[in-house]
Amino acid sequence: MKIIKYPHINDWQHLIKRPENEKVSLHETIKDVFLGVKNEGDTALKKYTLEFDKVALTNLHVSEQELTEAEALVSTELKQAILQAKSNIEKFHLSQIENKKIIEIQPGIQCWRESRAIEKVGLYIPGGSAPLFSTVLMLGVPAKIAGCKNIVLCTPPNNEGKIHPAILFAAKTVGITDIYKVGGVQAIAAMALGTETITSVYKIFGPGNQYVTAAKQYAQEFKVSIDLPAGPSEVLVMADSSAHPAYVASDLLSQAEHGPDSQVIFLTTDEEILNQTLDEIHTQLENLPRKEIAKKALNNSLGVLLYSLEECFHWSNIYAPEHLILAIDQAKKYIQNIENAGSVFLGNYSCESAGDYASGTNHTLPTHGYARNYSGVSLDSFFKKITFQELTKEGLHRIGNTIELMAEGEELQAHKNAVSIRLRSN
Amino acid sequence: MKIIKYPHINDWQHLIKRPENEKVSLHETIKDVFLGVKNEGDTALKKYTLEFDKVALTNLHVSEQELTEAEALVSTELKQAILQAKSNIEKFHLSQIENKKIIEIQPGIQCWRESRAIEKVGLYIPGGSAPLFSTVLMLGVPAKIAGCKNIVLCTPPNNEGKIHPAILFAAKTVGITDIYKVGGVQAIAAMALGTETITSVYKIFGPGNQYVTAAKQYAQEFKVSIDLPAGPSEVLVMADSSAHPAYVASDLLSQAEHGPDSQVIFLTTDEEILNQTLDEIHTQLENLPRKEIAKKALNNSLGVLLYSLEECFHWSNIYAPEHLILAIDQAKKYIQNIENAGSVFLGNYSCESAGDYASGTNHTLPTHGYARNYSGVSLDSFFKKITFQELTKEGLHRIGNTIELMAEGEELQAHKNAVSIRLRSN
Repeated sequence: MKIIKYPHINDWQHLIKRPENEKVSLHETIKDVFLGVKNEGDTALKKYTLEFDKVALTNLHVSEQELTEAEALVSTELKQAILQAKSNIEKFHLSQIENKKIIEIQPGIQCWRESRAIEKVGLYIPGGSAPLFSTVLMLGVPAKIAGCKNIVLCTPPNNEGKIHPAILFAAKTVGITDIYKVGGVQAIAAMALGTETITSVYKIFGPGNQYVTAAKQYAQEFKVSIDLPAGPSEVLVMADSSAHPAYVASDLLSQAEHGPDSQVIFLTTDEEILNQTLDEIHTQLENLPRKEIAKKALNNSLGVLLYSLEECFHWSNIYAPEHLILAIDQAKKYIQNIENAGSVFLGNYSCESAGDYASGTNHTLPTHGYARNYSGVSLDSFFKKITFQELTKEGLHRIGNTIELMAEGEELQAHKNAVSIRLRSN
Repeated sequence: MKIIKYPHINDWQHLIKRPENEKVSLHETIKDVFLGVKNEGDTALKKYTLEFDKVALTNLHVSEQELTEAEALVSTELKQAILQAKSNIEKFHLSQIENKKIIEIQPGIQCWRESRAIEKVGLYIPGGSAPLFSTVLMLGVPAKIAGCKNIVLCTPPNNEGKIHPAILFAAKTVGITDIYKVGGVQAIAAMALGTETITSVYKIFGPGNQYVTAAKQYAQEFKVSIDLPAGPSEVLVMADSSAHPAYVASDLLSQAEHGPDSQVIFLTTDEEILNQTLDEIHTQLENLPRKEIAKKALNNSLGVLLYSLEECFHWSNIYAPEHLILAIDQAKKYIQNIENAGSVFLGNYSCESAGDYASGTNHTLPTHGYARNYSGVSLDSFFKKITFQELTKEGLHRIGNTIELMAEGEELQAHKNAVSIRLRSN
């Protein structure tokens, strides 16, 4: 971890700057795969699965039987844990349902909004060694609450053609049955374009490697929208004298173990806390299976001593972290200082892992500085909000002249006529 | 208008399909202008303004004096109209403020969301012959309500180097003072990258021609987000026997006058209404200044006779219109049939012009089929919603085992440790 003590504010911009990802152009590869899927549908998916995942599949769809078998392969404990997490995520996302409010703008003029689910959504769950079944909950639960009619889940098979049972159990728990053993660019292409087996969708959610990220970007050319732009995961921990160094170290490490490009930032006003935390990182690191990954991330991480919490919040707002942990006394008092962050964790018992899995908040969050202009995934992400207006004859009379004048001012005569013709009649 | 009577459902997909825009590649031009602005800032802006708008500017910023002068040039009537529209738009958007709701997920675990304004936003107002001062209200009012700290407005000058006074008056009314006389690609580049005079922003809003649209897309490569993907404006009018042909015709024409590529769709269950509406279109068209434009749009438009309102809603939901007008009896009863639309107008007195200018709803809406997966601009568009969680020691104990099991299942040991270390201590 790079340590900086009391940097001058003129140096902050340089220090806060995130490393730029090397822009490898994957465009041609992505384009080719999309074209292949467009032309050859399921055949192309099986071809790419053989090529990239090294497994020959006859059937892309996960059967009822496979779902039942998976349930038996997950321990009772883990099943209960998944159910508890699901319940908490559901409770928080249910609270985001917006009640219809009819607003009387003026007598005879009513306006309101109504939410409608995006009819068809696609959820991408990466494969690899560590099965992200928590993401199935984070994306599946709000999709179900919203009432999306088609929820497609794609996840790559292992080299035995199987999906990790915890992923299947989590999907079953949420009530998702359209599950397909396909991953990578071809999965995104299938969800964007549709194949014989996989229905095309209007919006694609889910994390992935650089190929999947590039494929999601490309899918937008087919009028598919996506959840968020992607980037390496990040945490900023802010600590004062009330922080527990062991806890802070554990939070920094849980971020560092994600990947070598994970962003780990530690800001503190207390030099003693800084030193003790560094010791704790050193100690706790040794016992981590993903030690080497965490070490790489830490090499690119920053520990900064600042003069005050005010400075810490200023730094944090410029950085706009994906996860913001406030290991500070009376953390709640400082909430109004927060301008940019994905999700915030208050106090010594609100570790990031809680939000990652089971507190109820969504772990699909804006990273890479996108916390400045994007929200994390929520129930809203699965809805369109349609506006409605109903005017009576009297209501139109109240604003009729206004509309006529404005339409005339914008030289849109037919817009004006549409009002005049109604005002004239009895 | 192309008339189709009782088309077979097998032919619908083909009939509902929107014309594909010819994809002209503007990428190189956009890239060059962005590079020019990046390297030469204000100098580049003045250079492009001379080249594209044919006017030499010394000063890009609209001065206080110019704002005051503009006010005098707008008629009292139009000023009052703008003020009334502003008041209605404000009332509706104020109603979208979300109250903070702290949810007790389990005892000792609290989660909630808070809205924070996107700090810096850019509003693009196209120039040309018809000044879209209504768009200043539609974008400026929610930006102000949200509390965006920097609101930058860019609009191209005419060949005398002036901005239309109604645009300036509307901006002043909203309280926007960072107004710049620059348009086109260079304006988008200035807002994405920043220059000596114009501050860069995090999100860009506003309509524009294909150059501006392409520039907004490109701006996303610089981590700027945008309001909506663009497309030609469109209306779908649904009418039964209770509709007034003259009113329906006026609504179809107010859409047609926007541009030759405007989409105008008319669905009805009543052949008499169909014929009378066609007659009315013919009559009303003759008196329109923008007759030639409207004619072109109508040549590409569709009038369809269907058997029932159920069929009409089915068609409409597949098409996903930007504006949906229900000229049907007891329109409110049919609202639950609507799945995809940008904004809906109920009954014979809710003409689209009302929503375009002054009912209170926002006229920046998803078009080109994007009503399937995007909402129109609202107060939400100017906010980030940040999630918060606060766990007590007891709260963490309640889900601690769940988090440990899930983290372990995902092979993220440090995530597990961050909980274990807290559960272990006293």
